[in-house]
Order: sequence, then C-alpha cells, then structure tokens
Amino acid sequence: MTAPLLDQLISALRILPGVGPKSAQRMAYHVLERDRERGAELARVLAEAVEVIGRCDSCRDFSQDALCPLCRAPGRERGQLCVVESPADRLAIEQATGFRGLYYVLLGRLSPLDGIGPVELGLELLGQRLAQGEVGELIIATSATVEGEATAHYLAQLARRHGVRPSRLAQGLPLGGELEYVDRGTLSHAFGSRAEVPR
Amino acid sequence: MTAPLLDQLISALRILPGVGPKSAQRMAYHVLERDRERGAELARVLAEAVEVIGRCDSCRDFSQDALCPLCRAPGRERGQLCVVESPADRLAIEQATGFRGLYYVLLGRLSPLDGIGPVELGLELLGQRLAQGEVGELIIATSATVEGEATAHYLAQLARRHGVRPSRLAQGLPLGGELEYVDRGTLSHAFGSRAEVPR
Repeated sequence: MTAPLLDQLISALRILPGVGPKSAQRMAYHVLERDRERGAELARVLAEAVEVIGRCDSCRDFSQDALCPLCRAPGRERGQLCVVESPADRLAIEQATGFRGLYYVLLGRLSPLDGIGPVELGLELLGQRLAQGEVGELIIATSATVEGEATAHYLAQLARRHGVRPSRLAQGLPLGGELEYVDRGTLSHAFGSRAEVPR
Repeated sequence: MTAPLLDQLISALRILPGVGPKSAQRMAYHVLERDRERGAELARVLAEAVEVIGRCDSCRDFSQDALCPLCRAPGRERGQLCVVESPADRLAIEQATGFRGLYYVLLGRLSPLDGIGPVELGLELLGQRLAQGEVGELIIATSATVEGEATAHYLAQLARRHGVRPSRLAQGLPLGGELEYVDRGTLSHAFGSRAEVPR
C-alpha cells in the first residue's frame, strides 16, 4: 500500500542496531517530511564511510588512513599498550582517564563457540608488536564477562611470553554505587579482594 | 582522535529521530564492523528516496509516482474520504480497520503559532475535491490533541460547506484499559458521553 521505495527505505533502516519496524518507519517519515537535505548528506557520508574506512595498521581501530590519528600523534607514551574490545571502549577510556599510551583494538573477544580465535582477533600481529620490545606494559581492558576474562587470560600469557608485564583494570564496587544494589558476584569479589586501609 | 569521516558519519546519523550521540556512535560502529554491504545499500536507498519520493497528487501521501498505489487501487470506496495527519496514521488505520475508502494526508495540523494554516496543509486542494461531489462522508481522523481538534473543527466546516457529511472517530475509554489508570480528561469525557446500553 506504500510506495515500494519507501518500504525499501524502512527495511534498510532496520540494519541499524536498536531500530525496530516502528522506529524505522518514524525515521523514514521524519527524513522525507522534514530533512531531505540532511538525509541526502547522511546517505553520502554513509556510502563514503563504508567504502573508505579501513583498519589502522598499528592498532586495528577504524581509520581512513593507514595509521589512525591517535597512533600518528606525537607525545603518546609508546611503552604502554592498552588492549580494548571495541572502538567504543577505547573512546570511553580516552574520555574518562588520563591515559597517554597507545591502544590495540581487538574488535571482538575470544569466543571459540562462535569461531572467534586468536587469528580472528589478529593476535599474532599483537604478538609481533610485543616482540619488538618497545612495549613495557600491556594494560588489558577487556570486559569483565566470561569471554572477556578468557581473552584477558590469553593476552596475559602472550605478554609474559614476550617479557611484557600484563596488567588488568581493577575490579570491585563501582564508585558511587550503594552496597545494597551491587550484584552478588561483584560484592563477593570485592569482599574477597579487600585491601588494608592505608594510614 | 577518531577518523574525521567516522565523526561525520556519527553526527550525520543524529538527524534520525530518537538518535543521540551514544546510539549514533553504536550505529556507526555496528555498520562498519558487521554490515558494510547493507550499510552501502541503506546509503543507496536513502539517497534515492530523498531524491525520488514526492507527494501523491490525489491524497498528498508520500509516493514515487504521480498517484500512490492506494489511490490507484481499484475497488476502493470513493465516496468515503478519511483525513489523517500523517502517513503513519494512515498506515495504522489501514492495518487496524477494514476501511475501504480513500485517504487524505495533511502532513501536519493547523497550528497558527507555527505558521501552519489551511494553505500549508493543502486544504484548498481538499476543498476542490469535496466540491466535485464524489465524496459523501469526510471521516476526520486527526489526533485528539488541541491542535488536532482545531483542525477537525475546520475540516468539519469545510465539509459542510460542500454538502459533505463530516464524521469524527469515537472518543472514550480505550479497549482493555483499566478505569483506574485512564487519564482524567478521557474519563470525564467518557462519563459525560455515556450511551444507553442496548437491549
């Protein structure tokens, strides 16, 4: 009953994460009713992005050049390498912390059941980098999930094999969290890993 | 710190309704990580849609042809014309009811403060159509908001001027709704408009 092209647009919008049939419809109508110019701009940028954006040769993050701006930046501490699962995680660390080292973006985590092993995550490339001797500390910032922990374990072994010190983000109570509402696993871990209060 | 093109993509995605900075970022990463092919398809369809899709000459709904498929369809009852505010409203009525007549899509509602008057809504076109004498009933399906009611009032007068019978969707308790949770206005209206129970 609707124009075929409009149907196509609505179903094409559903590839975006979190967009169901209703919101895809709302998005299509919104663009057609009010924002054709910027809709055309979105189409152009999207087409160019999927065409042009590749991986940074050094950190494997998304980049339109061989080296991403962060890897090219002078003044970053090259002795510290922080491994994250996704570009979003890298951005979160970059925004929240004063970390001045470099990153390595896995774009995933070890998940043998899904066929994602060390090769799929490009870990031999990471091994080669650690072998060069420039990196002194490998900061492992994978998620605190089962797969993230398995990946962290693998990465720590890889680091030690190349004489690099592995470290992992601290785990415990989130800051500002009420004890009552913290999940059991976190509470049990935090209790077990309690540290003496410094004088 | 991120690739400029990636930044452009993230900000371009924010023209979509309900998409803030976080979800735009997630969408961009999702398309680049997993779905470049369908991302390119979305870009193509979107570019074509904003270029090609216009308005139906008869009902003013979005259409890529001069007449939309519904207005062209044989077997629709041409004596009943249902006025809706948006294509989404038309779709909702089409899916929920057995209505077999035709539609007229306002793409808005009267809102003098925003500069939206009868001309902006194309109401003279609707007047011409009513003057042709083919339409016997004008079903007014604008929203039950203040502006929707004002629009309905204007449309009813327009219909009567052309000797067309105007009707309005019934208002009252929503089906399946618990009385306790119905808003005051609706409850007061439903109470005042109570009807005798048929034997």
